[in-house]
Amino acid sequence: MNYCSQCGAEVHVTVPAGDHLPRHVCPACGTIHYQNPKIVTGCIPEWEDRILLCRRAIEPRLGLWTLPAGFMENGESTAQGAARETREETGAEVRIRALYSSFSLPHISQVYMLFRGELLAPDGFGPTPESLEVALFREQDVPWEEIAFSVVVQTLRLYFEDRRNGFPHTHVGTIERVPGERRDYRITML
Amino acid sequence: MNYCSQCGAEVHVTVPAGDHLPRHVCPACGTIHYQNPKIVTGCIPEWEDRILLCRRAIEPRLGLWTLPAGFMENGESTAQGAARETREETGAEVRIRALYSSFSLPHISQVYMLFRGELLAPDGFGPTPESLEVALFREQDVPWEEIAFSVVVQTLRLYFEDRRNGFPHTHVGTIERVPGERRDYRITML
Repeated sequence: MNYCSQCGAEVHVTVPAGDHLPRHVCPACGTIHYQNPKIVTGCIPEWEDRILLCRRAIEPRLGLWTLPAGFMENGESTAQGAARETREETGAEVRIRALYSSFSLPHISQVYMLFRGELLAPDGFGPTPESLEVALFREQDVPWEEIAFSVVVQTLRLYFEDRRNGFPHTHVGTIERVPGERRDYRITML
Repeated sequence: MNYCSQCGAEVHVTVPAGDHLPRHVCPACGTIHYQNPKIVTGCIPEWEDRILLCRRAIEPRLGLWTLPAGFMENGESTAQGAARETREETGAEVRIRALYSSFSLPHISQVYMLFRGELLAPDGFGPTPESLEVALFREQDVPWEEIAFSVVVQTLRLYFEDRRNGFPHTHVGTIERVPGERRDYRITML
């Protein structure tokens, strides 16, 4: 951020009075421009013993498989956003059920909210501008080596464990990138 | 938003190619300025059969009681943010336990994440720059008519019910302002 989005003046980085962190502050109009984490909302679309995955048609991680999920929009709920992202990325309609997992990713300032979603039909999904391919997978067929994001790997691992013991509770955790290593993550569950 | 925070040019509101919603777009440098919901993270600080509430020293709702909570910062987890806000607003240290409730407030594009937090000691809290007063309350002493926010009222109602049946699961819901009425809300649980 270089310029004030309110008045167009150049912003400074300074700790405002009464605050404890440096912020982008406009010396002309006084606006403090806070930056906060973004929510990625999505779901695990379920049909009997299978779940729906989509193969990414866009960067990052183009060509790899993931759960339907994306940035929550203003004016919607997390559950509405999860259903919308599922529709946009897979063409499928889901009934959103419980919150399944919430992971913080502090190194990229994102918070994932992943719900269980009941597919309304076992068809009606397919490729979209965001997905090269959309398919239902049984546990033994999940392409573990081709999953796009560590948060999805971790959520799916927990999910298949939980399916054997009745989904006892919402999982909350943090996934941190280990400094120095490119794709090495530390996972801490609450 | 009037000006591009990257280059300082005047922004336009338009639907970018491949998108479905109007965004603030810079015609000079091409930056798309997305606006997304913010997370408010906080906790219910517990000590035996009592919980900690704080009386707001700042607007909005100055003078009313609430749970310690505030905007999540970049670079932290939701649980770390909840402990930090509790420290800043009450002076108390908590050990964050399970996620208790997550409410979407689409009319103000906020998502609350409220955890159960175990107070490390039954003292060590008190007034702060953000709280006029900080005190432990038993259920029968909660000042229900003087709670600042509907999301806190709803969370505390669920909490005292749940305490009688062992905190079965995380509550997820949406609180919408009813159009036309000033302080009338519709609550939908998932």
